[in-house]
This record gives sequence, C-alpha cells and structure tokens, in this order.
Amino acid sequence: MSAMSAAPLADAHGPRSAPARDGEPSGLEALFNPRSIALVGATERSVWSIAAVDNLRRFGFSGKVHMINPKGGTIFGSEAAATCSAVGEPIDAALLMVPESKMVEVFDDLQNAGVGGVVILSGGFAETGHDGKQRQQQIADKAKSAGIRMLGPNCLGFANFVAGTPIWTTQLRRPSGKAQVALVSQSGALASQLEQFAHQQRVGLTHMISTGNEADVQVADAIEYLARQPEAKAIALFLESVRDPLRFERAISTAHAAGKPVVVLKVGASEASAKAAQAHTGSLVGNDRVFDALCRKLGLSRVHSLEELIVTTDLFARTGALRGKGLAFVAMSGGMCEIVTDQADREGIALPELAPATAAALREVLPPLATPNNPLDVTGAAMVEPELIARSLKALAQDPDIAALSFVFDAPAKEDARGFARRFITQIGEGFRGAGKPCVMLSHTFSGVSGEARALTEELGVTYSGGGVRHGLHALGHLLRHGAWRERLPAPPMALKPGSERPDGERAVLDFLARHGVPIVPAHVARSADDAAAFARDLDAAVVLKIASPDIQHKTEVGGVLLNLRGDDAVRAGYEQIMQRVQAAKPDARIDGIIVSPMRRGGVELFVGTMRDPQWGPSIAVGLGGVFVEVLKDTSLRLLPITESDALDMLGELRGGKLLDGFRGAPAVDRASLAKVIVAIGKAALALGPDLVSLEINPLLAFDGGIEALDGLTVWENAGEH
Amino acid sequence: MSAMSAAPLADAHGPRSAPARDGEPSGLEALFNPRSIALVGATERSVWSIAAVDNLRRFGFSGKVHMINPKGGTIFGSEAAATCSAVGEPIDAALLMVPESKMVEVFDDLQNAGVGGVVILSGGFAETGHDGKQRQQQIADKAKSAGIRMLGPNCLGFANFVAGTPIWTTQLRRPSGKAQVALVSQSGALASQLEQFAHQQRVGLTHMISTGNEADVQVADAIEYLARQPEAKAIALFLESVRDPLRFERAISTAHAAGKPVVVLKVGASEASAKAAQAHTGSLVGNDRVFDALCRKLGLSRVHSLEELIVTTDLFARTGALRGKGLAFVAMSGGMCEIVTDQADREGIALPELAPATAAALREVLPPLATPNNPLDVTGAAMVEPELIARSLKALAQDPDIAALSFVFDAPAKEDARGFARRFITQIGEGFRGAGKPCVMLSHTFSGVSGEARALTEELGVTYSGGGVRHGLHALGHLLRHGAWRERLPAPPMALKPGSERPDGERAVLDFLARHGVPIVPAHVARSADDAAAFARDLDAAVVLKIASPDIQHKTEVGGVLLNLRGDDAVRAGYEQIMQRVQAAKPDARIDGIIVSPMRRGGVELFVGTMRDPQWGPSIAVGLGGVFVEVLKDTSLRLLPITESDALDMLGELRGGKLLDGFRGAPAVDRASLAKVIVAIGKAALALGPDLVSLEINPLLAFDGGIEALDGLTVWENAGEH
Repeated sequence: MSAMSAAPLADAHGPRSAPARDGEPSGLEALFNPRSIALVGATERSVWSIAAVDNLRRFGFSGKVHMINPKGGTIFGSEAAATCSAVGEPIDAALLMVPESKMVEVFDDLQNAGVGGVVILSGGFAETGHDGKQRQQQIADKAKSAGIRMLGPNCLGFANFVAGTPIWTTQLRRPSGKAQVALVSQSGALASQLEQFAHQQRVGLTHMISTGNEADVQVADAIEYLARQPEAKAIALFLESVRDPLRFERAISTAHAAGKPVVVLKVGASEASAKAAQAHTGSLVGNDRVFDALCRKLGLSRVHSLEELIVTTDLFARTGALRGKGLAFVAMSGGMCEIVTDQADREGIALPELAPATAAALREVLPPLATPNNPLDVTGAAMVEPELIARSLKALAQDPDIAALSFVFDAPAKEDARGFARRFITQIGEGFRGAGKPCVMLSHTFSGVSGEARALTEELGVTYSGGGVRHGLHALGHLLRHGAWRERLPAPPMALKPGSERPDGERAVLDFLARHGVPIVPAHVARSADDAAAFARDLDAAVVLKIASPDIQHKTEVGGVLLNLRGDDAVRAGYEQIMQRVQAAKPDARIDGIIVSPMRRGGVELFVGTMRDPQWGPSIAVGLGGVFVEVLKDTSLRLLPITESDALDMLGELRGGKLLDGFRGAPAVDRASLAKVIVAIGKAALALGPDLVSLEINPLLAFDGGIEALDGLTVWENAGEH
Repeated sequence: MSAMSAAPLADAHGPRSAPARDGEPSGLEALFNPRSIALVGATERSVWSIAAVDNLRRFGFSGKVHMINPKGGTIFGSEAAATCSAVGEPIDAALLMVPESKMVEVFDDLQNAGVGGVVILSGGFAETGHDGKQRQQQIADKAKSAGIRMLGPNCLGFANFVAGTPIWTTQLRRPSGKAQVALVSQSGALASQLEQFAHQQRVGLTHMISTGNEADVQVADAIEYLARQPEAKAIALFLESVRDPLRFERAISTAHAAGKPVVVLKVGASEASAKAAQAHTGSLVGNDRVFDALCRKLGLSRVHSLEELIVTTDLFARTGALRGKGLAFVAMSGGMCEIVTDQADREGIALPELAPATAAALREVLPPLATPNNPLDVTGAAMVEPELIARSLKALAQDPDIAALSFVFDAPAKEDARGFARRFITQIGEGFRGAGKPCVMLSHTFSGVSGEARALTEELGVTYSGGGVRHGLHALGHLLRHGAWRERLPAPPMALKPGSERPDGERAVLDFLARHGVPIVPAHVARSADDAAAFARDLDAAVVLKIASPDIQHKTEVGGVLLNLRGDDAVRAGYEQIMQRVQAAKPDARIDGIIVSPMRRGGVELFVGTMRDPQWGPSIAVGLGGVFVEVLKDTSLRLLPITESDALDMLGELRGGKLLDGFRGAPAVDRASLAKVIVAIGKAALALGPDLVSLEINPLLAFDGGIEALDGLTVWENAGEH
C-alpha cells in the first residue's frame, strides 16, 4: 500500500474544503469515498487494526492512511501521530478503535482536525442499555454539531469497492469482477457472510455498508447515498429494525425512482408494533404483516434467506424489473421441465401456454420427438445439434405473453479442452441476443460461479446466475412483481392531518362514513315508538331495532337489539321492549333513542378495519365476515392510502374469495363497486387524523341491493372505556 | 483400464453360475455388481460408447470388458466379438447400445451367452406411444423368460461407486470420499445433475441408478436392492410416477425397516388419480395430496428441490433420524440467530426454550454480555476465546428437550496458514463429542464443500453440511419428523377384501355405520303419518322429516325435507305434505317412507369422507363443514387405515380447528371421542371392500349431546345414477 509506507505527512492533498468535497447532498462523500483515512487507536496487537490495515493494502487504497496513537511510535511501518490534529493534513475519514470512555476526547480532536466522517467500531453504547444509550446520544450530538457524519457505533465499517476503499475491521476479499450490487446491513457479521456468498457467486459488490447502532447514519441514509452511485444497479438490504420510518420510506422511494430495486431480508418482529395491537384489527394482523404491507406499498422485494437476498438482487442488477405476464423456460431434460413447472406453481409465476403461432414456429425448428410446450424440453437432440437451442429461444421469444426467457444450463468451473460447454453457451447467447427480451441462464442447482465461468458467460453475452432453478425462479418472481409494481398507479399521497371530527358510536360513525362516500344502511334514530313505526312504514320492509347510546358498545348483551320486525304494532312493541330491557341492564347509560333500519338478508358479509401501526401509520385490512375473519384470520392488509386496484388485489388474496363470486347460487358481488367502497373507507379513516387507533366496519354487507355498511366502530387514542 | 487392454478372452473367471452369484434375492447382483461387462453395439464413433468406456476406465473397473460389434475389428483397443455368445466367457452384465429393431436378435444372443443383467440405453419404446409399448413388452417378456434382469430401456444406466463399476453413458466423475448416500432416479439427466451437486457438496454416493422406462427394474427394485447394501445409509429418490404402488410401498418399508430413510423429490400429478376424482371427496383433495398422505404413511421425507434432496439425504446418512422435541442452534452473530429463529418458525421446527438448569449452566460459561437463549449467540467473544464454543455446546446439550445441536460455521475451502478455522472447528468438534447427542455444523449459506473442507471436518470429528442454514434447517426438520414417525404406532394393516354388503341411500348407510361403531342420529323410517307421530312422541323433541327413497339423492330439491316440527299434529301434517310434494316432483320414485329424527341444533359440523385412489387405495379426508370444506377445501387427508393418533393429528392440521375448542362460548368438542369416530368411519369404509368409490358423512355433528353422523352417502364402482 503505497500511501502507507510513505510518510504520512508528505504529499498532502490540497486544503480541505468540506462543502466542495461534498457536492454529495448528504455529506457522506467524505465518509464513504475518503481521500485520506486516519486509524485512531491503531496498534499492531489488535486483530481489528491488523484487518483494517490489511484491507486497505489489499484493495490498493490510493489515498493517505494515518496511524493515530497517543503513544506514537511506528505502527504498521508508519510513524504514528498522537492525534488527528497533529497530522497537519486534511483527513476525510477516521476509523475509531478506542474505548468508549475516550470517545468525547477523540471527538474534540476530530473536530479540530476537520474530519468529515467517522466509523466507530467500538461497542459499549446503546446495545448495552440505558446508560450506553445516553453515552451514544452524547457523541451523536457532538458529531452533529461538528458536522461529522458517523457510521456506528458498534459496526464493522464499510467497503467502497468501486473506489477501492475499505474501512472494515475483519478480513475482506479484494474486489473482483464487474460490480453492480450494493449491500447494506445492520449486522456487520452478516454483511461479511453476504460478501462471501456474493464472491462465491461472482456477484460483484459496489459497496458494503454495515450500520451498527445507527447513532447517525441509518440504512435509509446509506440507501439514499447508494441511489446516487451510478455503479450500483440494485441494493440488497439486511434489516433488523427501522429506526426512522419516514426516512426509510423516502430512501426506498429515492432508490426506486433512480431505477435501483431494493431487496430486503427483514428478521424479527417489531415489539413496538406488538404493543400497539390494541384494537381488534391489530390482533388479526400481526406486525410482520404490516412490514409485508409496507413492502407492497414501496415495491420492496422481500426475501427470506441470505442466498435469496444475493441471487435476487444480482438478477435485478443484471436484467432490471420484468414487464409482462410470465416466463418461458427451456431445458435439455424432461425431468428438469417438470421441476420448473412445480416450482413456478409454488412461486405463483405464470408459465404461459404458448400462442398457436409460437407453437407453430417452434415445430419448425424442433426435432420430431420434441413438443412445443412451456417449459420447453429441447431433448437430447440438442446435444447433437446445439443450434436447436438458439433457434428455439428465438421462436419462443416471439410469444406476446412472455416477459423473459430462461435456459437451464451450468456454466463450467473451468472450460474443458474440447470446448463442450462453450459450444452450448454460444448457442444460448445467440438465442438470447435474438430474443429481444430479458434472458437468463440458470444453473440446475446451486453452484459456485468461478471467475472463468463468469468470464465465459460474459464473453458470450449470457446473463448467468449460479443460484439454481429454485432460487432463480424465486428471484424472477420478484422481478416480475416489481415490474408490475412499477406500472401500477400509486395512490395519491395523503398527509395525516389532525381530524376535525371525532365520531364515536355506531350512528355517528356511520353518518361520518356516509359523508365520505361510504354507502350505509338507511337508518333513523327514533325518539319514540310512534317515530320508529313511522320510519319503518316508510321503509316498507321488515326492520331491525338497535339501541343508540354512546355508553353501550355491545348492544346485544343488554337486550338492545331486535331483528325482523314488521308492521306498526310489532315495531312499537319492540321499541318499548328494548327501552325497558336497556334501562334495566344499564340504568345510567345515556340513551339517544333507537335506531331503525331495514332488515338485510343474504349477501356476503365483509369486515373492513383500519388500524394505526406506530411505525408505519394507518393500514387497512379486508376480510370476509364471520369465521373467515374470526377463526381463519383470512384478511388482506395494505398501508393507506390505497387505490381501487389495490383493493381489488386485496379481494383477490382472500382465501374465501370464492364466496364473492356467487357461491351456492347467491348473486355475485360486484368487485369493482366493492373496491370503491373499501377505498372510501380508507380515505374516511385518514380524514379522522392521527388520533384514530382503528375504524371498523363490521359487517360491510354486499347483497343484491348493493353494498352497505351496517355497523361502524371507532377506537381513539386516550379515549376512556365506555 | 487393465481389463480392457487385455485380450477379452484371456483370464476368464470361473464358470458362471447365476444362482450362486446371485445370493441376492432379487437376482440384481449380476446387473449392479458385475464381474464382467459386454458393451453391445460399441463403436468409437458414438458419444455414448466413448462415455461408457471412459467411465469404466476412470473408475478402474477391475473386471473384464468385452466389445461386441457384428463388424468385429478393434474397438477402444480391444478385439471386438461379433456376439456375446462368441466371447466364450461368462458375461454378468451387458450394456445395449443397439437400435430398437435389433433388440429381439440381441436378446437371443444374451440368453445363449448366459448374461445376467442388461442396461438398455436405446429409446424408441414405451415413451413413443402404443407401438413402442408393445415392443417394450416383447423384450420384457424375452428377458423374463431368459432370467435376465433389465434396467431401462431409455435409461442412462447405473454406477456402483462402492464396487467401482459404472455402466453409464454420459461422462461421470470418479468416486471420491466416504460414500453413504444412494441415488435412484427415473430421469437419467437429473441423476447426472444430482451426482454433480452431490460431488460439489462432497456427499459421497454409493450407487446411482437411473431406471428409465422401467420395463423390468422399477425404482422399487432398486430401493430394495440398495436396502441390502451395507454402505448405503440413506436413499435419495427422484420420482415422476410410480408404476406398481404395492411394490413401491413394500420397497420403502424394507428400506425403512433396514434403518435407511428414503427422501423423495416427486414431480407432476398423476393423471390416473385426476380421472378418479369422481366422488365429491376427490375434488376436495387433489392427487398430489394423496402422495403427501402416502409419504406420511410410509415415513417418506418429501422435498421440493434437487438441493434439498441431496442435503436432506446426506444429513440422514450422517446422523440418522432425530428423537426429541426440537433443536438448539449456536452461532457467532445475533443476526444469524434471528435468521435461524425465523426460518425454524417457517419450517415448523421447535427451538425449545432452555430449561432453568441449562440456562444456569450456560451463564457459568458465557461471557457477561451473552444471554443464554436458543438460538445461542456466543458473541464475538468466541473469536478471542474459542473454548467458549465447546463449553457452550456441552452445557446446551444437557437440556432434556433438545434432540440435536447445530453450530453455524463455514468450513474453509482451503486451510489457511494460521489455522484460524482449524482452531474453531476443533472446539466445535470437542463440543460435539461432549454433547452426547447428534450434532451438525452448518455453513451460513449454500457453499460448495471442497475435499479439504470435508477432510478437515472429518479429521476433527465434525459432521458438516455445506447446505447452509436454510436448507440445513429444512433437512433437520425432516430428520425430526422421521424420528417421530419411527416412534409412532402404525395402524394394523387391513387387506381390502370384497365387502359383504353394499349399503346405498341415507338409511342403509347410517345403519351400516351404526353396526360398525359409528354413532348415528336416532331415526325411524315411518310408513304412515301416525307411525311418524308416534316415533316423534317417543323422542320427546322437535323432529326432522326426510323422504327415504333410493331414487332421490337431493331431498331438499323435491321438497322432501321439513325441519323443526314439534307435536303430533305438526308431524302428521308434515308427513302428508312431504309425500304430496315428492309424488308431484318425482312420481316414479320408489318411496320407502319418511325418516323421522330429532332436530339437532348448535355444535360443530364436520365432513368425513373416504375416497379410493386408483394407485394408493382408500384414503380419508376430515374437514369442518360448510364454507370450510366447500370454499376453503380445509381438509386433512390420510391413507387408510389410520389410528386415533393419526385422527388427532388430522384435526390438528385443520386451519379452522379453533372451532373445535369452544368458539364463541360453544362447548369444546372432545377431540379424543371425535378421533375414535373418525377411525371407526375409516374401518367401516374398508369393510365395504374395493368397489366402494367413496363414503361421505356430511355432516358428522359434534354437539353437547355427543357426536352423531346425521347423513351418509356411498358411491359405488359401476353404480347407475339414481
């Protein structure tokens, strides 16, 4: 490492000018792309120091590296300065490997030296509890006032593979190959594992950032920084928890607006969300589902293993999102085609049946025993005549329903002397080029990708993943879904402003909903038996009577409900009966009167409820009523606001959705109208402002007379129990 | 290859005696472990011949190899004989690479030469349609009468890695490492892929058998053969379809009785089963679910990818089935522990909470910042003090709930000079030995296992899988479930004998069930209104009247049902009303009378149905009634017979099972009694013999008065429509 063997004082770059250096809006350029680095607390006896210095040397870091140690002396062949200020040269970034107790002192020195960014390896902060949290806040405040961006504490660092700059405290591999994937991880240990796995797959990393305790730089900042780096085509994210939801959402949106899909492996369930599951809706939903809903909203591709994280992000980087209905697969064995069929089914990926024209075109080029199917088995005949491969791929690609093509073939670790594999991959490349659509060669099973294999496939113009058919299909599923997400019309954003109303009780809630475009059952709060009978007469139908009281939530329990009354006498008698029962059961309850509504029969009962997640804000759940929602928790969840298209998707996700299509001779529910009502309920909930914990419509009835909310309930922050 | 360069006529082994050679009961020893091999149709111009000869050479096959070609001459350095008979020496096995049209002639020669087994590479048989099927039968008959066992046609062959004997027609790798896993595949191409993947993982194969069209040797025969080979500890199976279910079941049972777990990757759905889905039950179930039910019955471990097939079979071979509640995991990173927790949850694997004594023992050995949890994060402290690892594993292993332990660590591809990995793996081995329970080291992610990595872990006594945490956990789940399966009490076998009765119509079916121990609702077929009223009076309850006619299946549609009648007059009037309506709607129907039963209210309705699968025989499905079974297809399926413990498992699998536990204040259903009734229904169905297509009890009512079948229906083979 040339800069390290040189005297640290020699050959300083020009006077440091933080703003000029940092055209980077977030001020992270000095941290993530420094021209000079100070290793504070460097010592030849520490494994961390050794690794950090080794990494800089191995990467060929071209800037200056300064050893800082109060004892001075020669460290790793360089004369150490006692402090950063003593270096007398501009320092862009510093790696702090000093005890937590020295931090404040060190920060004073950093400020004096005009350091732009620090990486803090040291632990002993927020991860240790209350006191540590306070100490962390102290240095965060110091850094902020000094204008120093801070990675950590308690993190392993970062590596900027593009610039050849690692500030990383365990052994790292030298960057190799074309880098397109950026990696952000809250866990440094897992970042190392992911880097190793990426290398094994010859997936080049542009950056790798571990954020540790996130006293300053959070995953959101790292993602926004990466969204501006031209080399990074897609971002892989390992996430334990999100500290600042708004920043996180903004960062993901920035990355996606820049055309850089973000793939996330999120572990654990948020305790904050769990506590918040006060409302009925909460218990139906579960916190992890809220994160799933967030992924749908933001177009995040959520995966569930380290392997999927790398394989999926790599394919995003190589081909981008896919637009279209489904995939075409080609293999050289019937057994493989069967595996692909089963696996695609499990992943919910369409393998469209071939259009007649495609089938005809394929018949022209295939050997007699092969059948034009998707997946397509080109049979062993391709062993003898590899040209079949290119011809089949080109013919298949003409099919209008096919978004992308995949050929199952292993790139060999080493090219054999006979060029066997080259002959096939040449044909695959020829077919891919002729296809005019995204194409991927997938290995049969998971297999490491050697440098030679990567070079051979790139030379022959073949996009290759060694992730195997299972992980490859999983990834392609994400590419298709992200493509669909990009094309959908997002709901217009709605800021959550304090609501001007606070409706409570069935009548008030239903009236509020009606004013917000939600159809509700006709109803009248009768103040007398005659009043009730008159309204019932106007309705010309059997009616339901329900007590109206702000103090009574469970009306049935106090005898406050009577069903299916018809005729003046029955309605009058019913009115008196309810009043007597309720006065007996709840003598102190305030009574507004008795609600008279037409009795609805048949139709499909739905449940629509909104709930507020403390991190991610209001969400909406839709389910079928009765056992579906109460026993099976068969609900679909989205973050608000939603569009009608979202609402239709939600209905499509319900396991009991068949009930909407005219089950057992009942008329089918008009899904489009239902979707409109669901959207209106979501908007009404947002209009109620941030104090609304939940709004529940149960049931929302879809019947042959239309769609009506029959009952509504609100739960408010800090509201007393009725 | 010494034998090949020698003159084929020299140095013959003693006179061939097939029975003596074949102490092997299936007569497969000559085929799968031949002392001499003839390559019939060998030519230096064929890729298949080249590969077959190369393989024999590379494996160092120690027996004789004879080239057979009617043109004679020198082939691959040996003088070719025109026929096998002309060789003049015993030939155990022959590989046939001749056109289908020459087959009959070749078989005459094989018979004359006393060949014991053949591998037929050639295609053009059953896979091409009707004519090919006939040709295949012809040679199968010839082989059978000649006492020749036959692999194929249309197969790539087999390799006996233990004996160093390949008869395989594409390039194979030389066997390496300790072999414990046997592989059987109906697809030759996928067998090759699996062999390649196994090699990449340094999973040693004992045998690899591709069965092709299975004119003689089926997967069942291969499995039975492998069950007798001491080197094979577990068997991996790729399956497209099963030709002979009984042989298949017997073979799996033989393997399991020999302590060799079978892991299966089964693709495709059987068309035969699909056609058979005539009965209502069939449409609820799906054919693939019948294979799942078979797997449960036979203790087969079913996987869904090639990777899982090898990783799971390998772990079975290394540790055997696991006995106990769950697993303990140890890693050196909190992030990895979180991934393990999520993944175990998805796989349904228990990670038991540690007993207080275990936690206390761990606290003794762990560093202050580490918490005694499962999964256990030994923290970075283990980097400095690797002895922590052994101590933690030993302490964890004392926990009574833990069946097996796993440490997450990667075996390095090459040992580094500093012996970094060796130091850790030594401690892991020390901990594993001290644990006294099965222990596995799993790589973090999927990674190839080098020869050095395998050697290092074996040297240090560490069972290692490079399958990564995700696939490793999946495999360990199978090991646990197979362990539980081994300990369960199987249902006593019941042969399906022709039934002595053929009950048809609700009354006859319910009476039959009652005689077989199934509780049914009290009922009486009344012949007059007075008769009906008298029975209703005895019941002292509201009653249901239903028309009893062998010609009427849908009673409600003809007005043949009245509910909730109470009192002599109402029952008498109801009797007359039904009779009039039915005579109007179905004047020609034979009327047996009117069934009088007590009206049951409340309780939980279940559906119990048996159906006959054409391949796997009678199965039983249990579900909750109404929307659960009709909309959600929420059923659990088993092959008959079942035990009460099976029936309890089935109830446990129902998504709506919560309804059985006293939902909404209803009394809980006694699951033990319900399980007894389900078993009795299964036995009754078996007693009805093989002509029964399906028996349906819908509903079976579980209410506070007990459990009763309210209605029953049979469908018979070749029965006319009523």
